[in-house]
Amino acid sequence: MPNDLTFDANKAAPMKIYDWPTGPYPARVRIALAEKQLRSRIEFVPVNLWKGEHKEAGFLSKNYSGTLPVLELEDGTFLAECTAITVYLDALEGAPTLTGRTPYEKGVIHMMTKRAEIEMLDAISVYFHHATPGLGPDVELYQNEEWGLRQRDKALRGMHYFDAVLRKQEFIAGEFFSMADIAVIGAFIFAAIVELPIPQECKALLAWFARMQERQSVREQLAIVPPNH
Amino acid sequence: MPNDLTFDANKAAPMKIYDWPTGPYPARVRIALAEKQLRSRIEFVPVNLWKGEHKEAGFLSKNYSGTLPVLELEDGTFLAECTAITVYLDALEGAPTLTGRTPYEKGVIHMMTKRAEIEMLDAISVYFHHATPGLGPDVELYQNEEWGLRQRDKALRGMHYFDAVLRKQEFIAGEFFSMADIAVIGAFIFAAIVELPIPQECKALLAWFARMQERQSVREQLAIVPPNH
Repeated sequence: MPNDLTFDANKAAPMKIYDWPTGPYPARVRIALAEKQLRSRIEFVPVNLWKGEHKEAGFLSKNYSGTLPVLELEDGTFLAECTAITVYLDALEGAPTLTGRTPYEKGVIHMMTKRAEIEMLDAISVYFHHATPGLGPDVELYQNEEWGLRQRDKALRGMHYFDAVLRKQEFIAGEFFSMADIAVIGAFIFAAIVELPIPQECKALLAWFARMQERQSVREQLAIVPPNH
Repeated sequence: MPNDLTFDANKAAPMKIYDWPTGPYPARVRIALAEKQLRSRIEFVPVNLWKGEHKEAGFLSKNYSGTLPVLELEDGTFLAECTAITVYLDALEGAPTLTGRTPYEKGVIHMMTKRAEIEMLDAISVYFHHATPGLGPDVELYQNEEWGLRQRDKALRGMHYFDAVLRKQEFIAGEFFSMADIAVIGAFIFAAIVELPIPQECKALLAWFARMQERQSVREQLAIVPPNH
């Protein structure tokens, strides 16, 4: 069980990430890796969402919840959940930048990340899987359209909420780029997939997204997202 | 904006927590506070769930998502979301014990906490609000019974998953008590409220819950949960 409190890049072991490169949740970890300059240490293993490979027994043994991405550590431990993976990656180096340094920063970043999930990203995901064809009939074995449509409306309200936040501050969790910004970028990626336009009146939110695209980590990730996928 | 990297109990400012004492999510933060011996610093402000006070404008301005609990810091910042609050409280003192010390511990604890939410606690919450009378007709303005029942079944599968986890290790995230155990305790509290019994065949899970009740923090919280609420 790795128990090192410090990180030595020279001794760094390889890590595997099971994901699908154009997925909105995989994008969150890929952007975090690029920000932390850790991409070169990662071997990516594709799990085809569109074929439902993330719901097959082989993958479920890695992540009970059947979601991407999953990080496999050198000792065989599988780490799932974007926030958990990001916390792990951020803690590897002595100078955390994505999940905060002080109690206050950590608390606010975790809150805003979760809020981005509840109010936008996860809501758009439920809309996609329940009120659109989603990953197709072979994968979407149960759909609840009414619930999906409600989640779409929730996500639209969430966009207005985050617009109001960004009218007062430069980044989602305050004065610097963090895991919370990455979560909202994930929501934008998913919104593009489901063709849910960001309302034009959300000027601060749209301006923030334009600023985000000035970052190489974000630009590179957006470049691999094909239209409608 | 508090930015202190160390915590001095003598200079500790008072904090307010908006919650409802018998709520499963408030329980998570109350247990964390007891474990960290921080309860005496907290002024609790009741927000009556059964009257829907958490959905009123006054409270929504504190937490957009309309959920309890919310921690108010000395500077007026409102911290919502149990994980964010627990991370904050845990980071206040030099010796973190609930959210992990190493990258590995942090990653696993965050993953298992989120998994406890997705697969048990949040699923039971959706069941309560959508497929039972929930908080009553004045508060539950929309219900999707089919979705609620599916979430109940998901929670039952989740109990078997966590039972399998606990057949191999003493605590939810490994070898010591953490935020992840507290999240599952929250699920047990909610299961009791909705009268969803833990399957008797989940022997390791039930044995774990008996061990959890040896902790004063857990015992005290369970003592204030009245039957059926």
